[in-house]
Amino acid sequence: MLKPAPSSLAMVPFVSVDNMMDLINEKGIETFLLELAEYIEDDFRRWPVFDKKPRVASHSKDGVIELMPTCDGETYGFKYVNGHPKNTKEGYQTVTAFGVLSSLSNGYPVLLTEMTVLTALRTAATSAVVAKYLAPKGSKTMAMIGNGAQCEFQAMAFKAICGIDTVRLYDIDPAATEKAARNLMGSGLNIVSCTSSEEAVSSADIITTCTADKQYATILTDNMVGSGVHLNCIGGDCPGKTELHADILHRSDIFVEYPPQTRIEGEIQQLAEDHPVTEFWEVLNGTQEGRTSDSQITLFDSVGFAIEDFSALRYVYDQVQKSDKYVDLDMLADPDDPRDLFGMVARANAATH
Amino acid sequence: MLKPAPSSLAMVPFVSVDNMMDLINEKGIETFLLELAEYIEDDFRRWPVFDKKPRVASHSKDGVIELMPTCDGETYGFKYVNGHPKNTKEGYQTVTAFGVLSSLSNGYPVLLTEMTVLTALRTAATSAVVAKYLAPKGSKTMAMIGNGAQCEFQAMAFKAICGIDTVRLYDIDPAATEKAARNLMGSGLNIVSCTSSEEAVSSADIITTCTADKQYATILTDNMVGSGVHLNCIGGDCPGKTELHADILHRSDIFVEYPPQTRIEGEIQQLAEDHPVTEFWEVLNGTQEGRTSDSQITLFDSVGFAIEDFSALRYVYDQVQKSDKYVDLDMLADPDDPRDLFGMVARANAATH
Repeated sequence: MLKPAPSSLAMVPFVSVDNMMDLINEKGIETFLLELAEYIEDDFRRWPVFDKKPRVASHSKDGVIELMPTCDGETYGFKYVNGHPKNTKEGYQTVTAFGVLSSLSNGYPVLLTEMTVLTALRTAATSAVVAKYLAPKGSKTMAMIGNGAQCEFQAMAFKAICGIDTVRLYDIDPAATEKAARNLMGSGLNIVSCTSSEEAVSSADIITTCTADKQYATILTDNMVGSGVHLNCIGGDCPGKTELHADILHRSDIFVEYPPQTRIEGEIQQLAEDHPVTEFWEVLNGTQEGRTSDSQITLFDSVGFAIEDFSALRYVYDQVQKSDKYVDLDMLADPDDPRDLFGMVARANAATH
Repeated sequence: MLKPAPSSLAMVPFVSVDNMMDLINEKGIETFLLELAEYIEDDFRRWPVFDKKPRVASHSKDGVIELMPTCDGETYGFKYVNGHPKNTKEGYQTVTAFGVLSSLSNGYPVLLTEMTVLTALRTAATSAVVAKYLAPKGSKTMAMIGNGAQCEFQAMAFKAICGIDTVRLYDIDPAATEKAARNLMGSGLNIVSCTSSEEAVSSADIITTCTADKQYATILTDNMVGSGVHLNCIGGDCPGKTELHADILHRSDIFVEYPPQTRIEGEIQQLAEDHPVTEFWEVLNGTQEGRTSDSQITLFDSVGFAIEDFSALRYVYDQVQKSDKYVDLDMLADPDDPRDLFGMVARANAATH
C-alpha cells in the first residue's frame, strides 16, 4: 500500500536562493528592479490600508532576529531577518532573510521565499523610487559611500529607475571598492573609483551612504554636502547606528517611511523627537510636498519597512505563477476530514509498514 | 559551466508533514509524546530564562494569523499559526502551523518544520505533563468533551504520560465521537462513547474539554463537576471563547501557563483581573503548591504558549540530527565573500547562460 501523495492544499511554493537568482537573471536585473519598483510604489500609494506593526525584535549580545509582519486587509506577509555584524568574520552573512505570503481569509501560506537576495533588491528599488520623486531633475551622477553587499544593487536600481549614468565609489576598504567596480563593469554605468569620500561626492547629484558599522559614525560632514543634492541614507538603520553629522540633518528636508520606526532606527534618532519629517507616501499622494527648489537638500532616511517586503513578496508571488522557478513544499497538514488529523497520521503509518 | 552547488551554510533542514508523520510513526506515537513531554517539562522548569513576548496577531473578519516567538538566550524559535473557524466548511484546516528554530548567536535558521501535526502533539503533551502533577493520584479515567482534531492526541498523551486506561468520549456531533472511537481502537485504551456530557464525566478522574466554538459556551455546568477532579480545559483559547460556567472556576484552584496571556484568552477572562492563579512552572519548581487535597478541584486553563512550541522545535531538531526524515532547503544566500551578494547573482547568470 503506497502512501497517498499530499493534496495540493498542503503545498506551499518555495523559492530557493538558486530559484531567486534564476528569476532575476532570466528577466535581467534592471527589468526585475523596474517591475519590483512598481509594486513598491503601488503599495506606498495605498500606505494607509496597511497594518503597521512595529518589528518584533529578539536582541542578543551578538545581534538581532526580527519578524516584520504586515497585511493589507486581504493578504498577509512577514519577513524573518537577522542582523549580526560579527558574522562576516566567521564566513556568515550579516543579514539573511526569508519571507512568507499568506491569504488573510483562510490563513494558508501561499509563498515561502528566500529574502536575502530579495531584500537587497527591494532596498535598492525603494531608494530609487524615492529618488525618482525627490532627486534633482536630470540627476546623472551618484556617489556611493560604502561598497558592501548593498552597493551594486543600489547602483543598478538608480540606473534602471532614475536614469543615473555615473557612479562614484568609495569605501574605507579599497578591496570593497574594487569588488564593486569589477561587478559593475559591463553594466553600462560609468564607474569612478575614488580614494576619499570628498572625492566621491564631488559633482554628485545624489549621495548614497550605505556603511555598516554599528556605532554613531560620521560618514559625511556638513562641508561635504552642497546645496541641491539628494541624500539617500541606507546605513543608519538601528538604534545607535547613524552615518551623518547632525548638522546635515538640520539643513535638509527629511523624508521617511514610517516615523515611529525611523525615529528609533534612522538618522533622525540624533534629532529632537518632534523634528519635522515628511512621510514619503504623502509625497506620492500629493498631500505633502517633495522637492520644491533646486537648492534644497532632500534626505531619505531609509530604515526599511515591512510594507516594502510585502511588495517584494507580492511581486515574487506573481512571478512564480508564470514560472517553474519554485518547488512545492508539503508544509501544511491536509487530512481528508479536517477533524481527523490523528487518523491521517495513523493511516500514514499503516501505509508505510 | 555548471552552477556550483549551494554551500552547506545556505541549507536549512525542512521537515515536511510527510516527514513528521514518519518521525512519529517510526518511534511510535506514545514514545514520541513521552520524549516530547520531557522537553516541555524541562523548559517549564527553566521558565524564567525565556523571553516571553505576547503573540503578534493579525486579525481579520474570518480569523487570525499569529507569530509566536521566544528565545532562551541561546536559541530562538517562532511558530506561524492561523486560526480560521470557517475553514473546515471549505475543506481547509482551522489551524495550520509551521515553525523555525534559529541560532541566536548568528541568526541563522537551523530548522524549518511543519507544525500542524506537531502542535497537536505538543498541546496534548503539555496537558498531560500538567495533569501528571495536578490530577488525583491513581487517575485512570478521563472524560473527553469535544472529539475534534485534538481529541485522540489528548487521549494518547494521557495514556502514555499519566497512565490513563479509560477514555469517555462525548461530542455534540456523534460522527466526531465515532471517528475518535475508531481511531483509538487498538490503542490499548478502553473507549466508552457517551451520548451526553453528563454521562461522559460520570466516574471520570480527569475531565478534558476541547471544543471549538468561538463564543462564550458552557460545555460544563457547575453540577457536573464533582470534588477532587482535575479539569484540563483546552478549548477556551482566544478572547470571547470559553467553555466553562464561571461557577466552576470559583470552586477550582486554577493553574495557567503565562497569566498575561491567559487572562485575555483563557477561561479566566470570565473572572476579575486579579483572581488568583498559579503559574504551573512554579509548581514544578516547588515555589507554589499544586494539588493539596483529595477533594480539591484543580483546573489547567490552557491556551498554548510559545515556549511549548519552542520545546517541540528543540525536540524535532534533535530527532532530525539522527534521522533522514528531512530535506535540505537552499534558503539562505551564502556568497563566498559575504560582501559580494551581487557577484554571486551575476556569476549564477554566467554559469547558466
